Amino acid sequence: MQFLLEIVEILTSYIRKTFDRSTKVLDFHHPHQLLEGMEGFNLELSDQPESLEQILVDCRDTLKYGVRTGHPRFFNQLSTGLDIVGLAGEWLTSTANTNMFTYEIAPVFVLMEQLTLKKMREIIGWPNGEGDGIFSPGGAISNMYSVMIARYKFFPEVKTKGMAAAPRLILFTSEHSHYSIKKASAALGFGTENLILLNTDERGRVIPADLEAKVIAAKQKGYVPMYVNATAGTTVYGAFDPINEIADICEKYNMWLHVDVRKYQQANSVTWNPHKMMGVPLQCSAILVRERGLLQGCNSMCAGYLFQPDKQYDVTYDTGDKAIQCGRHVDIFKFWLMWKAKGTVGFEQHIDNCLDLSAYLYNKIKNREGFEMVFNEEPQHTNVCFWYIPPSLRSLPDGRERRERLHKVAPKIKAMMMESGTTMVGYQPQGDKVNFFRMVISNPAATRSDIDFLIEEIERLGHDL
Amino acid sequence: MQFLLEIVEILTSYIRKTFDRSTKVLDFHHPHQLLEGMEGFNLELSDQPESLEQILVDCRDTLKYGVRTGHPRFFNQLSTGLDIVGLAGEWLTSTANTNMFTYEIAPVFVLMEQLTLKKMREIIGWPNGEGDGIFSPGGAISNMYSVMIARYKFFPEVKTKGMAAAPRLILFTSEHSHYSIKKASAALGFGTENLILLNTDERGRVIPADLEAKVIAAKQKGYVPMYVNATAGTTVYGAFDPINEIADICEKYNMWLHVDVRKYQQANSVTWNPHKMMGVPLQCSAILVRERGLLQGCNSMCAGYLFQPDKQYDVTYDTGDKAIQCGRHVDIFKFWLMWKAKGTVGFEQHIDNCLDLSAYLYNKIKNREGFEMVFNEEPQHTNVCFWYIPPSLRSLPDGRERRERLHKVAPKIKAMMMESGTTMVGYQPQGDKVNFFRMVISNPAATRSDIDFLIEEIERLGHDL
Repeated sequence: MQFLLEIVEILTSYIRKTFDRSTKVLDFHHPHQLLEGMEGFNLELSDQPESLEQILVDCRDTLKYGVRTGHPRFFNQLSTGLDIVGLAGEWLTSTANTNMFTYEIAPVFVLMEQLTLKKMREIIGWPNGEGDGIFSPGGAISNMYSVMIARYKFFPEVKTKGMAAAPRLILFTSEHSHYSIKKASAALGFGTENLILLNTDERGRVIPADLEAKVIAAKQKGYVPMYVNATAGTTVYGAFDPINEIADICEKYNMWLHVDVRKYQQANSVTWNPHKMMGVPLQCSAILVRERGLLQGCNSMCAGYLFQPDKQYDVTYDTGDKAIQCGRHVDIFKFWLMWKAKGTVGFEQHIDNCLDLSAYLYNKIKNREGFEMVFNEEPQHTNVCFWYIPPSLRSLPDGRERRERLHKVAPKIKAMMMESGTTMVGYQPQGDKVNFFRMVISNPAATRSDIDFLIEEIERLGHDL
Repeated sequence: MQFLLEIVEILTSYIRKTFDRSTKVLDFHHPHQLLEGMEGFNLELSDQPESLEQILVDCRDTLKYGVRTGHPRFFNQLSTGLDIVGLAGEWLTSTANTNMFTYEIAPVFVLMEQLTLKKMREIIGWPNGEGDGIFSPGGAISNMYSVMIARYKFFPEVKTKGMAAAPRLILFTSEHSHYSIKKASAALGFGTENLILLNTDERGRVIPADLEAKVIAAKQKGYVPMYVNATAGTTVYGAFDPINEIADICEKYNMWLHVDVRKYQQANSVTWNPHKMMGVPLQCSAILVRERGLLQGCNSMCAGYLFQPDKQYDVTYDTGDKAIQCGRHVDIFKFWLMWKAKGTVGFEQHIDNCLDLSAYLYNKIKNREGFEMVFNEEPQHTNVCFWYIPPSLRSLPDGRERRERLHKVAPKIKAMMMESGTTMVGYQPQGDKVNFFRMVISNPAATRSDIDFLIEEIERLGHDL
């Protein structure tokens, strides 16, 4: 127990420093450097045990060479921040060390999940919060569930007979959508060629007419359009697909509508990732399904040694057979505890703050010398996409040379950021657009001063490129 | 930070009590009782925030009405016990709150995973520990990976063209195997009817001749036998399929051999769950693949915003595109830290202790009045399967009445155990065998006195049935 208290001392000191802006976000080293053993930090496992003192040293080193994702200037991903109540929830969860598959061994957590899922469905707007859902190990798996459930709804015989029992099924998603839909189409036996990518407008939103044209084309070939994924807040641009129009097309052609990320009443299923904008520690993702029974029907296999029908309690509370997993980590408690501590209003305030900061960044750089926006429009979400143009490129005319040189700017600045450990922000190309920065704000510790810092840091590091 | 220290106080006090045998394993309540609000424990979420004092009360209540899976007398599942170093590892992991998808934000954890996977492959016996692998959210997902990878190996075009591009593919597994193979066959588009269950001997081991006969029969119908799952330590009986003979048949008919649970050199892939016999906190499971490149080839989608090829470090360390997940929880650190603290020898000792306890239980009850073994043979694994026969049934002749009454005994004793909170052990029927107890021992806190207690408690609770 003394050992555990010493770990707590290490962790609380780490947390204090993480919130201190004078601490580096990371102390970067290349893989080979860490593998060679930095200052005695030996990653190799051995046959013989180490002393507990050495274990404490290993813990300190692990934190030292890691990335402080809770640092106010860490903007690399949407899952950032370090909520202390959420963290306490995780510590309790790992101390309880149980499994979501049965009420028998996780009675409180199973009920918390049920109540929280219902609350989420109410927020989506499904009547009386009815429907179904489950927490899964991340948004990609939640999206995978949505495809499986849609298939089960339209072609339940695939469960027993395989894809051979169905006609050629077509899925649709935005060319800007998350790659998890593509992973699901490969894994589940549809094939990525049967996932049709939809064209988007300049702002990255699906063009509904393109969807309808592609649905008609697929039907003319004798294929069956089955599923549409609409994204509310795409990964890079933060774009919102026009869900009303897409919902109408889905209804017209009898297709399943899945909405990735945000509440939407007309959806058949919704992926909701509290570990993103809501700042819940990783991992925390839910798949919500409007129609009851599908999740169970799709996945149940009725294992006798786990889901005995002759238990003394109401076995409908055993959620395990709805999942594609057997053991399932308790992801609910930290989220439930944060919800208790913040209330619904607290989450709303947090999201409003993030949107304010995005607007602040956008307004600050849209006319600033050396910055160029990927699109000129107030952000719909917390994503702000922009290029930094070093002085040496500012007078170059648009053309191949400028594009090639600009493409290298963001990776160089990012590398320097990581070397100096001051801040982290993502970049990528998109379609014909060369590498640009994608700022996302979900970190509750971030303030306007951190946004100012980011802008100045990019200028400082990129000025002489 | 004060709040966090108060949580630690609650958790350390919980841990102390968990290891104290005079504490109940659980304080059982039915779902409706907990939902009605036990002694003011309100599970409902609200719009307004709660005070931090109330949050602390919520945490205490959550633990109070939960199940102490680390209690020395908790035998309900193979994932039991509460290793303090593993727990410290989880607390650190949640404090670091990062994601395994890139080296960029999880440099240390990514390297730990790589080194640990290599060490595991060495233990399996693959030359130089070569091959590939990844940690996944549980054994069911690891098994799912094995089926996906086998399909990709033999029919890579399924990734793009779907199951229509392949002939009818047949999978094989024991009638005693874990239900996750069945879930995978449904999810991945094979269909559960194309998963053929293999007959077992009385001890629950696959009969190799049955496998070969079924392979030949499938081929005669024009189907393609593709994949065999062999289990080393089945869930209920703890049986070991005869892997050498199965491997020979796989080689002869060019099928993928997956081994679920234990090291086996001739396997093409292995699922290894450190959260079971090795006592690592949930979740911790790995899929190991002998041939390099398959995992990446099978799952990669090359998302530009995450796996930028122009990063400043060696991007082969970005593991994210091998996974079916996007974000992936850090499951490696607790395992790595426990391995450091115990050494390989420490894990071996722990497993030997568990096997000793199983043998102790078996020898103690095999000739004891009122106990009947499901099969009379020293346990191969830690599973011990037995019936308790109450005095009222002992003189009944074997037949329908005895079977029907005996079927109800285990559920009744289990219910009383849970009501009294003294211990927990699993039960289930299997094939034509009525409900029997399945003891599994993986809890490092358990001693012979706890085995004695279990036997006496079953006698005490079941005597008057």
